[in-house]
Amino acid sequence: MRKIGICGSDVHYWVSGSIGPFVVKDPMLLGHECSGVVSKLGQGVTHLKVGDRVAIEPGVPCRRCELCKGGRYNLCPDVFFLATPPDSGALARYHVHAADFCYKLPDNVSFEEGALIEPLSVGIHACRRANVSMGKKVLVCGSGPIGLSAVVSARAMGASEVIVTDISEERLALARKMGATKSLTIATKDPAEAAQQVRDILGAMPDCAVEASGANFSVHMAIRALKPGSAFAVVGHGPNEIQVPIVEAIAHEIDIRGSFRYMNTWPAAIEMLTSGAINVKPMISHYFTLEQTLDAFEMAKSGKGVKVIIDCEKSAA
Amino acid sequence: MRKIGICGSDVHYWVSGSIGPFVVKDPMLLGHECSGVVSKLGQGVTHLKVGDRVAIEPGVPCRRCELCKGGRYNLCPDVFFLATPPDSGALARYHVHAADFCYKLPDNVSFEEGALIEPLSVGIHACRRANVSMGKKVLVCGSGPIGLSAVVSARAMGASEVIVTDISEERLALARKMGATKSLTIATKDPAEAAQQVRDILGAMPDCAVEASGANFSVHMAIRALKPGSAFAVVGHGPNEIQVPIVEAIAHEIDIRGSFRYMNTWPAAIEMLTSGAINVKPMISHYFTLEQTLDAFEMAKSGKGVKVIIDCEKSAA
Amino acid sequence: MRKIGICGSDVHYWVSGSIGPFVVKDPMLLGHECSGVVSKLGQGVTHLKVGDRVAIEPGVPCRRCELCKGGRYNLCPDVFFLATPPDSGALARYHVHAADFCYKLPDNVSFEEGALIEPLSVGIHACRRANVSMGKKVLVCGSGPIGLSAVVSARAMGASEVIVTDISEERLALARKMGATKSLTIATKDPAEAAQQVRDILGAMPDCAVEASGANFSVHMAIRALKPGSAFAVVGHGPNEIQVPIVEAIAHEIDIRGSFRYMNTWPAAIEMLTSGAINVKPMISHYFTLEQTLDAFEMAKSGKGVKVIIDCEKSAA
Amino acid sequence: MRKIGICGSDVHYWVSGSIGPFVVKDPMLLGHECSGVVSKLGQGVTHLKVGDRVAIEPGVPCRRCELCKGGRYNLCPDVFFLATPPDSGALARYHVHAADFCYKLPDNVSFEEGALIEPLSVGIHACRRANVSMGKKVLVCGSGPIGLSAVVSARAMGASEVIVTDISEERLALARKMGATKSLTIATKDPAEAAQQVRDILGAMPDCAVEASGANFSVHMAIRALKPGSAFAVVGHGPNEIQVPIVEAIAHEIDIRGSFRYMNTWPAAIEMLTSGAINVKPMISHYFTLEQTLDAFEMAKSGKGVKVIIDCEKSAA
Repeated sequence: MRKIGICGSDVHYWVSGSIGPFVVKDPMLLGHECSGVVSKLGQGVTHLKVGDRVAIEPGVPCRRCELCKGGRYNLCPDVFFLATPPDSGALARYHVHAADFCYKLPDNVSFEEGALIEPLSVGIHACRRANVSMGKKVLVCGSGPIGLSAVVSARAMGASEVIVTDISEERLALARKMGATKSLTIATKDPAEAAQQVRDILGAMPDCAVEASGANFSVHMAIRALKPGSAFAVVGHGPNEIQVPIVEAIAHEIDIRGSFRYMNTWPAAIEMLTSGAINVKPMISHYFTLEQTLDAFEMAKSGKGVKVIIDCEKSAA
Repeated sequence: MRKIGICGSDVHYWVSGSIGPFVVKDPMLLGHECSGVVSKLGQGVTHLKVGDRVAIEPGVPCRRCELCKGGRYNLCPDVFFLATPPDSGALARYHVHAADFCYKLPDNVSFEEGALIEPLSVGIHACRRANVSMGKKVLVCGSGPIGLSAVVSARAMGASEVIVTDISEERLALARKMGATKSLTIATKDPAEAAQQVRDILGAMPDCAVEASGANFSVHMAIRALKPGSAFAVVGHGPNEIQVPIVEAIAHEIDIRGSFRYMNTWPAAIEMLTSGAINVKPMISHYFTLEQTLDAFEMAKSGKGVKVIIDCEKSAA
Repeated sequence: MRKIGICGSDVHYWVSGSIGPFVVKDPMLLGHECSGVVSKLGQGVTHLKVGDRVAIEPGVPCRRCELCKGGRYNLCPDVFFLATPPDSGALARYHVHAADFCYKLPDNVSFEEGALIEPLSVGIHACRRANVSMGKKVLVCGSGPIGLSAVVSARAMGASEVIVTDISEERLALARKMGATKSLTIATKDPAEAAQQVRDILGAMPDCAVEASGANFSVHMAIRALKPGSAFAVVGHGPNEIQVPIVEAIAHEIDIRGSFRYMNTWPAAIEMLTSGAINVKPMISHYFTLEQTLDAFEMAKSGKGVKVIIDCEKSAA
Repeated sequence: MRKIGICGSDVHYWVSGSIGPFVVKDPMLLGHECSGVVSKLGQGVTHLKVGDRVAIEPGVPCRRCELCKGGRYNLCPDVFFLATPPDSGALARYHVHAADFCYKLPDNVSFEEGALIEPLSVGIHACRRANVSMGKKVLVCGSGPIGLSAVVSARAMGASEVIVTDISEERLALARKMGATKSLTIATKDPAEAAQQVRDILGAMPDCAVEASGANFSVHMAIRALKPGSAFAVVGHGPNEIQVPIVEAIAHEIDIRGSFRYMNTWPAAIEMLTSGAINVKPMISHYFTLEQTLDAFEMAKSGKGVKVIIDCEKSAA
């Protein structure tokens, strides 16, 4: 293994031992945003060779159920998923993984970028679910790693405007740096007022939206801001239950679409990284070695940085 | 005009003077489920002739906005819609309507059936939004006119199982008579328990769902019952805001789709009525003459019947 | 194994030793339309038990390529497919098959029907590719086993009219018996004239079409008959290259869609057979025992029957 | 009127008096790629004001037929279309047009660019029909104005690779300048060989294709080059009938989709031009005044330039 990014879920398992129904019962490794170098090949693998630099898609589905066969393997109930109990993670020197979920990296895509294809994929999948396409105006709620991934994905899909909302002006500055054309620092407690601000800043109703903040407020705001007939992808996990302005959602036929992980995103992500059309590097705020993993997690927990990267290689010394 | 069905919204305007933002300010006619006979043609109309029996689609959109041009005219913000203030209704001897929203009825489709194409269309549109197709198992929540319309639509689209839920066993009996293969009388207050009952009765998770009860309970139940990756059309109007189990909706990528009125449903509905593949007549519980309109509305308000029909023709006497 | 249907491709391999790039080089079994009884289970199989009656989907894809993961496993280039060289068939007493491509048959679906799910699936897949849905008028070209499968599939999906064309009035009589509402015996050599006849008989332009005859004539006729904006699924294999009226196809935005085998059809097919909404039994014209296989193939080759079934069970005597 | 581009169809009507079923019988104006300034408003028009700079969409559909209501107004059989007999064109000082097909141009989009939204729209529509999206590899056959429009559209939609084919290296040089990442000068007469060259140059099978050359050769080449399961939009008009390798198209489920004109493209095109994501200016090769119209047509007929623009304004002198 080479580079591994720390995700909010990694921190959550470390701190509280569970996320919803997933409970850590036995010692396990964390880490599911990762890249590495092929050190050995399984039987019959021909698309890779020893020494290839690869990015790893962390979920390996059963390949046999109705959802896998129907092209939605991200919903497979029997998936193996790195760092999701009871499945262990990849934060280690070596890790064995299904070869068809290891994707060769071009020379000009770094190991860090390879690791960040995982959060980027969440953004790509959400933008696909939200029907983002050329010339559309997109609302992204939340400017953390997933929101930022949605911003760069939406721009790469041809969105002409991407407005990002957050309560932190600092996070919004990063969003603008990464491609957002507009931003709104949420100051009001009234989602209808915020929705109107979104429309005013855009000079139009957004055509699609991605919710990546986990806040009930954002769901309200987006449904009230969106153009009738829009798709609204909800990725952000917050409370188990939220209030939804359903009469408005019905009258405007807003599609409220859960967006879960990703499927078939690595090849497209690699294409966009190698061509330079997507740049995820501004997300990286800190580097640590494998030996400094505890410090890395403390940093991630502190919320000071955006994306913390751990280097799994043995240092030369 | 010949036959007009009374809709819950008609009763609501009559009793309380408003529905959400639509407020009755001036005297207006009610009635938007209607059929009639062509008595005069506008200039350039060639697809109809005087004497033709027609069903009327009550909404006439602006034809010029982005939504009209994009094929979703039901979401047009400048629509004229019968019996929705400030637009008057069609409960009268004569009514003038855009010719392309008047559809010729075959001889074997009665005026009553012609009028009921309106509620049937709500069911057809919802089933389309819910991706109902051949061999699917469909959950319909609520066994009123819209729920029943969804039942007959789902069966006509090839659904192999349709399970209907309601708190009234009497209404469920009508649903079964009209084609539901299974039913569940809701007795519990726990939507998760009801969801499990739905799965147990079906012997499977439903593949799609239509919510036509307006109850927050049903939205919960459906999201918990549905197969991952399903579409869930929400038609029923209840409270402005509802609680939604969003984490479950995200993890299972349930599409929660508002379903508003209908578009391009009359031609298909007429095809199904004339072939006998859909039968809406069991929905009709009472008949009144135009002179008895007050009694008709009292009956509709009482909730005793399912669908009350008013005959607009002058009686021969 | 219990019942096996003989397909045109089986006869073709037997007579000429190859179909396009697939050449019989070594002795191999034929037969890919089949049903049987589970006699032994592989490790980890839980959805079946010994003694279960099953229908078999003959193609087992690689599960790892981009097409498999993208939900189009029927296009997998590394598929194992019964009776397609170099893969052997299932015309034998016993056959070993991937468990997730064996589907349990309900008690009221016979082994013959289970075997015929294979050709039926070709019809279902083609109708899905042709966007058949409720209230649509469908043109099916060719009234052999695949055309008949398309007819029953289209009706089960809610098609209000299905017009079938063929040069044999006898085959068309069977199509009408199985659910076609209209038919046209092709007598002209001019596809434009035949297209006009199709429109005249329907009283409308067809909304979708399935080509199952393999004749270039039918492709012409369908493109000229179809309503603008329609989808046209082409299943029938005839000459490698055909003439297409491309200017008409462009001006009317006809989607000419190749339709290859099937995917995810067995569960829906079983639902429709068990409910009685689809009846494939009228297709069966002849029965033979495994010992009479040569006679069975001679009969199939003669073109006298529609579908010839071989019983693989040892006779009691 | 301000700027008008000359299209191949304009030249064709001028030279030969007809295109297929469209025959020039009475004197008529040409010109349908156009921009202008609002000099007068019709009753009820509120989205424009006198003095606004606008681009004009040349087709005004009936708004009432099934195709208009179904969201495919480009297929309306009763469309008014500029410079398509019997409808006259807009090559004049003044032209009256339906207001909702006049789109306000931002200050930084010139009249020339406004006029070129028409050919650009053909490219956008074709790319939508071909399912172009982020990270895809796209084959564009033909490097004339429509091919070039497809190139810039595909790049703006996020295509990571666009390979263009033509017999003219000069035209290919312009394609590369406008965003094509690869090109192939067709030298062989064997489409299968050319298809292999496309795959070799891309290092992969193309994911989608747009045919804009009108050559039967290109249709063959594209079907043989494309990845199974791809969509192939055919725009180019050549002979009425072409040969298609149908067995390959079936086995790979290639969707051969006619692409006719455009719908709902002006707003997206304007977004992309104003943001700079699409640049059509390199297409313009020559300028003429309205008084030099004959010279302009001679130039267009000569095939020397790419896009000839006529300025309709009265010169100051």
